[in-house]
Amino acid sequence: MTGSEKRLVGFLLFEGFELLDVFGPAEIFGMLDRKFEVHIVGEALGAVSSAQGPQAVVSKRLIDCSDLDILLVPGGDGTRIVVENEAVLSWLASSADKFEYITSVCAGSAVLAKAGLLDGRWATSNKMAFEWVESQGPNVNWVKKARWVEDGNLWASAGVSAGIDMSLALVKHLHGEKLADLAAKGAEYDWHRDADWDPFSELYEYTRN
Amino acid sequence: MTGSEKRLVGFLLFEGFELLDVFGPAEIFGMLDRKFEVHIVGEALGAVSSAQGPQAVVSKRLIDCSDLDILLVPGGDGTRIVVENEAVLSWLASSADKFEYITSVCAGSAVLAKAGLLDGRWATSNKMAFEWVESQGPNVNWVKKARWVEDGNLWASAGVSAGIDMSLALVKHLHGEKLADLAAKGAEYDWHRDADWDPFSELYEYTRN
Repeated sequence: MTGSEKRLVGFLLFEGFELLDVFGPAEIFGMLDRKFEVHIVGEALGAVSSAQGPQAVVSKRLIDCSDLDILLVPGGDGTRIVVENEAVLSWLASSADKFEYITSVCAGSAVLAKAGLLDGRWATSNKMAFEWVESQGPNVNWVKKARWVEDGNLWASAGVSAGIDMSLALVKHLHGEKLADLAAKGAEYDWHRDADWDPFSELYEYTRN
Repeated sequence: MTGSEKRLVGFLLFEGFELLDVFGPAEIFGMLDRKFEVHIVGEALGAVSSAQGPQAVVSKRLIDCSDLDILLVPGGDGTRIVVENEAVLSWLASSADKFEYITSVCAGSAVLAKAGLLDGRWATSNKMAFEWVESQGPNVNWVKKARWVEDGNLWASAGVSAGIDMSLALVKHLHGEKLADLAAKGAEYDWHRDADWDPFSELYEYTRN
């Protein structure tokens, strides 16, 4: 953390990232600007296109990210490319010990799994692409019904908007429920506080059959 | 609409826009890419900073926006500046008739109100800054308890994440509930289908007293 006790939260961007995976959590952490500082990070500085079209700007290169406290890896169609990107995977593998928390939203857990960070750990992912995500980490204990899963300093959420609930839970874990509640109310967001709440897990069966 | 029957949805960006006001709705419309095409629009091309820090990229200038079908104006601290921006206000006033729908999230309704688009119409806004928003449109019928308000082709939502519910309702209005439900499930989002659901309206009283 910086001297001002702010935690630096880095959001890993890559071509084809899912918009809400990034900017739901970035809204929560960014709103609490006395406690967190939000950075968009990536392989190179500049604009990166989301899976939905709009572009966001990487303002911090991965090689300059050793001061991050929390890393968030989003999902999106682009994860199919990132799991083959040796530069990103080796950066993740070599940097993991430096971060206080490593988090993922949606198929972002496939990227963490492919980098080997989730071996022997518990994690979840979005339900529509669960089987593909599982295939990226055969040694991971995948949880099919969960809004998010906490395993020590590794937190993984289910699909897209689940990242908002995970972020609020992490704020609660770090600074108490009152501050997390303030953020949820500020965003007029109907916070799901129960990690086991997951009506979308039925979609897993749907895509499987 | 374009020949392919896609509606073009433009998100108005300005310095200090609220991240989730834009990228919640952009996730919903962007996911349904057979029906909608998402564009980030603004006064000038290039990077614009959000209220939370991260930057997004304007890819279409306001003067090139006559082909938009739907416009969304977000909130954020930057609205305090935009309501004094004559170029944006006059563009809104002169373009309003060209759009099939004009929508706002959070304090974005203050911008529409200041441009005169909401006079005599029903609208809502976020609850934390409601009195300021009201002051920008003394002739607007402001609704204090609503997740979103529909008045003809003008749709206004409450704060931040309410924009996601409004967007899903607009998808339902245009293409039926099945497609909207598909988008909600794709985002693993707990869709609030009732425009009157608004537990956050109590925050209005809180900030008032």
